[in-house]
Amino acid sequence: MAPTPETLTAERILEATEEVLRRHGPAKATVVDVARALGVSHGSVYRHFRTKAALREAVIKRWLDRTTDELAVIVEDGTRDPETRLRDWLAALFEAKRRKAGDDPELFATYMVLAGENGTVVAGHVEELTGQLERIVEAGVSAGVFGGVAPAEAARVLFQATGRFHDPCYAGEWTLPSADGDFRAAVEFLLRALRVR
Amino acid sequence: MAPTPETLTAERILEATEEVLRRHGPAKATVVDVARALGVSHGSVYRHFRTKAALREAVIKRWLDRTTDELAVIVEDGTRDPETRLRDWLAALFEAKRRKAGDDPELFATYMVLAGENGTVVAGHVEELTGQLERIVEAGVSAGVFGGVAPAEAARVLFQATGRFHDPCYAGEWTLPSADGDFRAAVEFLLRALRVR
Repeated sequence: MAPTPETLTAERILEATEEVLRRHGPAKATVVDVARALGVSHGSVYRHFRTKAALREAVIKRWLDRTTDELAVIVEDGTRDPETRLRDWLAALFEAKRRKAGDDPELFATYMVLAGENGTVVAGHVEELTGQLERIVEAGVSAGVFGGVAPAEAARVLFQATGRFHDPCYAGEWTLPSADGDFRAAVEFLLRALRVR
Repeated sequence: MAPTPETLTAERILEATEEVLRRHGPAKATVVDVARALGVSHGSVYRHFRTKAALREAVIKRWLDRTTDELAVIVEDGTRDPETRLRDWLAALFEAKRRKAGDDPELFATYMVLAGENGTVVAGHVEELTGQLERIVEAGVSAGVFGGVAPAEAARVLFQATGRFHDPCYAGEWTLPSADGDFRAAVEFLLRALRVR
């Protein structure tokens, strides 16, 4: 028996949408497709997401938020010194993106289409990540190990300067044998700029 | 009267090829199209470029070499101190790419298709540019103003960390009001990492 509309949560709908996207690509995942996959009426789905655009926006936001939530743990971790937090944060971001791109390239490509359609969501994601970096830089300034730069500006530079290791347009380079060495060299170089003299 | 085959140089063929690409897009620019544009037989063109692939490779190489040659002047300019040379070099690269993308977006898109077909030529271009950066860093180390990093590694980091300001995948961001401020902040941040302490 199909699940009743009462059991429907936004989260279940988003899971089903991801599954529809995985199977059929970015052209699909209309509200009707998703309702069919869940065995419910499209009216039930519309109660949670009023349009196809709203559904697609929610699904890309959920996908991006998974990374943000994972990284927030590092920002909060007072047991690691700020330099370690920065290294670990950048490594975790690179690893998360590389995993997403490598484990399921078709779904990754689909999410890239959705990202292209939802510039505001992506801009919000970048802002959140930059905000996390800013807090790590601030922690370093408070601890007296980083200095000479405004944390907000440093965070923006750090995010942009490491684009090669998280921006999907470089996904093709992430599996090169040189990728990990390039990443480590970039992080050590950027840390030199941050350290107090 | 059409020019005789004797007047044909590789350079004239490449100019005509660029013009054919500009008018008809990347699917065009076969040897026959170019020969017709020049009013010569395709045999005359084949004497210089034995295949369509060789012609397309030469035309993208010529396009990339224009930037390399422009930047080489800065590397050689002993009247500028190494820090100024590095600032000017990165600014000139950003400006050259932004100009190419902005002045003729369709030709730029065409060249991106050619770049995708000619990975080896693009890799050689990146190697030449990184080599130029390495010479500037070496000059700074010799002058005692840069230190603490191996010039070859620093050059590679500098090139990759400034990808946002020269990699065509960011062409859409180059006209944002924030682009120049982001560029200056990145360059000043990277210079901090290079300076001797």
